[in-house]
Parts: sequence; C-alpha cells; structure tokens
Amino acid sequence: MLALQEKIREEGIVLSEQVLKVDAFLNHQIDPALMQAIGDEFARRFEGQGVTKIVTLEASGIAPAVMAGLKMNVPVIFARKHASLTLTENLLTAEVYSFTKQVSNKVAVSPRHLAAHDHVLIIDDFLANGRAAQALISIIQQAGASIAGLGIVIEKSFQSGRAELDAQGYRVESLARVGSLAGGKVEFIE
Amino acid sequence: MLALQEKIREEGIVLSEQVLKVDAFLNHQIDPALMQAIGDEFARRFEGQGVTKIVTLEASGIAPAVMAGLKMNVPVIFARKHASLTLTENLLTAEVYSFTKQVSNKVAVSPRHLAAHDHVLIIDDFLANGRAAQALISIIQQAGASIAGLGIVIEKSFQSGRAELDAQGYRVESLARVGSLAGGKVEFIE
Repeated sequence: MLALQEKIREEGIVLSEQVLKVDAFLNHQIDPALMQAIGDEFARRFEGQGVTKIVTLEASGIAPAVMAGLKMNVPVIFARKHASLTLTENLLTAEVYSFTKQVSNKVAVSPRHLAAHDHVLIIDDFLANGRAAQALISIIQQAGASIAGLGIVIEKSFQSGRAELDAQGYRVESLARVGSLAGGKVEFIE
Repeated sequence: MLALQEKIREEGIVLSEQVLKVDAFLNHQIDPALMQAIGDEFARRFEGQGVTKIVTLEASGIAPAVMAGLKMNVPVIFARKHASLTLTENLLTAEVYSFTKQVSNKVAVSPRHLAAHDHVLIIDDFLANGRAAQALISIIQQAGASIAGLGIVIEKSFQSGRAELDAQGYRVESLARVGSLAGGKVEFIE
C-alpha cells in the first residue's frame, strides 16, 4: 500500500535494526484518514470471504480494525490486556510477550462475543515475532470459531512471525512489508 | 443522542448502582457504525470551534475519537497508560485512578505531538468521577495548549465528574447522560 509506505518513510523513525517507531500516525498519534484507507484496503483484500467478526488487540490495533469493521459491516472485538471490573465472565485467554514493552500479558476475550459460527479476521498494527497473532489465534480456536486470515498494517518480514503463520497455512495480508531497518533506513519488500 | 440511548437500553448491563457494562458495543466489542455516528455527532457539536487535535485515553476512547477525528479532519492522540520502548522522550504525564480496574496509572503523552498552538477536544468513552478527564486536562495544560471542550460518550451524571468540569468552566458534550442505575434500570437525563 503506497500511501502507507510513503507515510512510514516520511514519519517513521528507525530506533534500531529491530524497532521502527510510528508514533506519529499509528501507535500514539493516529492519522484518521490513513486509518480509513487502511480499513478500506483490508476490506478489499478480504471481500467475499464471509468474515463475520474482526478481532484485534488493544490499543494500537483498534483504529485500523474499527475502520475495517466499518467498511465490512462487522463488529470488532479488542482483546484486553488488563483485568476490568466489568469483564467478569469465564474468559478466553492466552499469554503474549511484548518485546517492545518487555512484559508478558494475559490477553482476554469474552466468550459472549465470539462463537463457533464466527469467521474471524484478525487485524493488528504490527507483525514481528508473531506472539500477539498466535495469542489471538489461540483465543479464536478456544471459541471454536474459524479464521479467515490476518490483516497486518506493518510487517517486519525479517522477524519470524510471518514465516511461522505462512507455515501454519494462514492467509496474511500485510499492507507494508519491511525487509530491513539496517543502517537506519526502511527497506520495503514489494 | 437517541441511537446511543437505545443501544444502551438494549445491550447495556447494569452491574450495580454505580457500574454500567457496555462491553457489547463500546468497551470490548465495538459497533463501528455506531462509533461513526458518535464521531459525526461530536464533530457537529464542536464545529467551527477551531479544534486542531483530539486527545483520548487508551483503549476504549480510541474508536469514538478516531471517528470524530476523521469527520473533523484532525489527528488523534491516545494517552498511553503503559511504558513502551518506542515512547522514550520526556513525557507529559499525570496520574489517574481507575475505579473499574482499581489501579492507579500514570498516563503519558509525547510533547512531540502536542504544542502550545493546539486547541484540543478531549474525547472519552465514560465520564464518572472525572479522574481520566482531569488527567488529560493536566497533560494538555502542561503542553501549553488550550481546551475546546470534552466530548463524552456516556456520562454517569450521578457521579461528581460532570459537576466538577462545569465548575471549572469547561464545555462538556455528553451523548448519553445517565441519571440513575437504581433498581437495575438505566434512567437518562434529557
């Protein structure tokens, strides 16, 4: 997705060979018009696949997921990382380790909102080592629902997550695939 | 906002005289079309006020804030509750105690994205005792920016937050004002 690649080149900051900071438009400040274009593109790529629900992870996945849900006319669930007084049922949970935050979180979805008849599109802001994606897959499987695929805003293709999902047979649609951050420069895979 | 009141009546769950659970469309599962209607309504109410930026708090504020930002054509910042490797500058911070989660969090915004010339609309999912709203006000004041007002999806008018903001002279636009949850029933203030 060209507009996204241009935005990453213009406003992304390479913090190391592993870490790309996109706080200017995705992870802290959000560009709503870009999120709409991203949501529309996910909808286009998964059109006709019978998606009934989108699942994402708080917090940075919410904006692209809601825009995709708006276009596809399906509800969005964001898995929660933190306990809440109002989320009290027997929850579907999985563990996910965040390398950027250096903590392990239990992520949770209420079974009230995810059922065996659901066909789920997973959307997330980043795919790196794939820990978040695998946790969401586990939760969807616990609900007995099926998975249409994964829509990723930015994939760091040099980390293991994409290859692992490919090997598992999941369809992965990444709107920007970063091949390398070496030398402080973002190289995209077309 | 009638569509919101109807949704709360149909899908909201009164957990106690203090706690209204709206996990079916706002705090866990999200209804994207309703979020768009909410965003459009905030844009209508703050039209012509010179808003340059929207500030909200992760995670449940993000969906309505991004939809308002889309309609108003301004960026959205979500204040972060948790440290991140990619959020490393000298941050603007404030403490906020969450009654529903029973923890105190430091919330943070990068000064890179908020400047003295900004005129800010604060958007949040709930207004109860006003702790989150006051933390966001403090952060915006630390940046030297001005405040256009607050857009709230659901106000619990029987708690102290609204009265306190009124006394401070802020414009508060709440799309649903809940006067009481007594007897397990949601009563709205028109």
